[in-house]
Amino acid sequence: MKNDLLLRVCRRQPVERTPVWIMRQAGRYLPEYRQVRDKSDFLTMCRTPEIATEITLQPIDIIGVDAAIIFSDILVIPEAMGLPLRFSEGTGPILDKPLRNEKDFDELLPVNVEEDLGFVLEALRMTRRELQDRVPLIGFAGAPWTLAAYMVEGGGSRNFIEIKKLLYARPDLLKGLLARLADAVADYLCAQIKAGAQVVQIFDSWAGMLTPPQFREFALPYLKQIVKKVTGTGAPVIVFARDAGHSFAELSEIGADVLGVSWTEDLAVARKAVGDKVVLQGNLDPCALFAPVDRLKNEVEEVLAKAGQEPAHIFNLGHGILPPTPVAHTQAMVDFVRELSPAFHQKKEE
Amino acid sequence: MKNDLLLRVCRRQPVERTPVWIMRQAGRYLPEYRQVRDKSDFLTMCRTPEIATEITLQPIDIIGVDAAIIFSDILVIPEAMGLPLRFSEGTGPILDKPLRNEKDFDELLPVNVEEDLGFVLEALRMTRRELQDRVPLIGFAGAPWTLAAYMVEGGGSRNFIEIKKLLYARPDLLKGLLARLADAVADYLCAQIKAGAQVVQIFDSWAGMLTPPQFREFALPYLKQIVKKVTGTGAPVIVFARDAGHSFAELSEIGADVLGVSWTEDLAVARKAVGDKVVLQGNLDPCALFAPVDRLKNEVEEVLAKAGQEPAHIFNLGHGILPPTPVAHTQAMVDFVRELSPAFHQKKEE
Repeated sequence: MKNDLLLRVCRRQPVERTPVWIMRQAGRYLPEYRQVRDKSDFLTMCRTPEIATEITLQPIDIIGVDAAIIFSDILVIPEAMGLPLRFSEGTGPILDKPLRNEKDFDELLPVNVEEDLGFVLEALRMTRRELQDRVPLIGFAGAPWTLAAYMVEGGGSRNFIEIKKLLYARPDLLKGLLARLADAVADYLCAQIKAGAQVVQIFDSWAGMLTPPQFREFALPYLKQIVKKVTGTGAPVIVFARDAGHSFAELSEIGADVLGVSWTEDLAVARKAVGDKVVLQGNLDPCALFAPVDRLKNEVEEVLAKAGQEPAHIFNLGHGILPPTPVAHTQAMVDFVRELSPAFHQKKEE
Repeated sequence: MKNDLLLRVCRRQPVERTPVWIMRQAGRYLPEYRQVRDKSDFLTMCRTPEIATEITLQPIDIIGVDAAIIFSDILVIPEAMGLPLRFSEGTGPILDKPLRNEKDFDELLPVNVEEDLGFVLEALRMTRRELQDRVPLIGFAGAPWTLAAYMVEGGGSRNFIEIKKLLYARPDLLKGLLARLADAVADYLCAQIKAGAQVVQIFDSWAGMLTPPQFREFALPYLKQIVKKVTGTGAPVIVFARDAGHSFAELSEIGADVLGVSWTEDLAVARKAVGDKVVLQGNLDPCALFAPVDRLKNEVEEVLAKAGQEPAHIFNLGHGILPPTPVAHTQAMVDFVRELSPAFHQKKEE
């Protein structure tokens, strides 16, 4: 592998500089992505391995990040369980048959990863071939709580009233769903690793919609269940539970190699909470990419300084990159990490 | 005063039970509110003291809360500074002339509270008369950072890119605006107290959109400036910086009597961070009001238990009440606080 920085950091091996990749790096801020998007709809892009591969590779060439992440969507799992999925311009994903009663839950289909999600596995195999070991390839899936929230709400939501009603009124039903999702996600991630993913990330995007005790009851155990199964493959696992900084200490105990840190949290505080149990990933404010370049440089340096001198940090944003982000600033951010991070690693070796 | 529980807790005097009120208690979940709303638009309701008074009193009679909060909106200050305001059904407030360049900032008008916001002061006087000292009356205003975010974005926002651009590129310009807003808000709150408000709350609703260092630079100093001036009147001040739990320790030092705690935070953790410097307010999950009533009772009890045995807690939701909330459950919540909280205060006096 030409650039194995990410893998080395995940294994806590020394590195000469901090690796950097960007959540949603294969996405709408890139004109090259938008050109492909103009010709086909989002789900066709996910389901066509040639297109998914092309999109996945774009930021490697254009931005120069240290990892590729497969172009896909977390909602392919609910879709495989029988909930029709569509994407509406502007409003995001819509599941037209949300789960509302016990019968809806009973009718969910078991997931057969090879059959139902073969297009993702094929995209991973194709991307690995095209990457020619330039950088590692990351696979991913949504966390059970986040997938359940989409499945019950029928899409994104502001206040998540429906899933909360279920949580309060029928915790047994919700836990049944979460357990099924945890099984499916674990199988799916293991299959991704078999197909070529060298690292996997679990996105618990709606973790912040739970109170701290709810997070520990309805999210954490299912993350743990998945991590246990997936780390058995030997591939490193990143868990990004967005806005769940209240439970960093608990998250550091579930066996994940890396924890993502939201931009709303303090990286130094997170480090204090987790000790040296895990690598941390993040957490630049996505809006810092709209700052003048000299300000952006300061912000990058501040993240590196808070991450400290251990080889235990992966640079990233603290959330997905925003569609209107200027490409030149994104490139500048990656360059600043290359330029500024070696100083932190040298000090380590003195 | 017949029921001065809220005032006594704010002054750290013994109480026989925990007082309870609800953010947005005079609002859309009440059929009686919707009846008034059907006949006049939101801004007319704010600007007509008779209507504002009627709406303010509704939850006292219907829900039985321990305080009234004047019906108004935080955006009356930007409007008084020359930014036309309108409310669009479904999308929330819109300021059609957002601040985008230095000239826009220069053209902002100074606020003359008596002249520009006399309708709020008149509503306070009228409400005090009608309340006949049944419960205390709370006045309120938006915090400088939150008001600035609305003024620059032109309304609510998902990612707050415009205000963040300003923050990174022209912190001087933003700080000038924040200082002007702090002056206007302090004057406004002092005038509200003179007109009859017995407690005031400052809402920093978008505090959570700032990174922790940004919160300490662009929000905290201006909150402090306002609190300093307003506490000079002798009236207690509540500061609710939503989702800024990372800075509870710092917030407890600005001189506020009470700090609001979001439902995404742990009340016991907040208490640990602030010591005994302030009263805490909150923080039931607003979605708990959709739970079956026996579950709701457990959730109310859990909040009371986390608040502990000091007379230093005001029961509230950890965010505004949601429009589809069932009224019967809201009443049940208030009844549960009345029923369950005396036990916590008795123990204190043993």
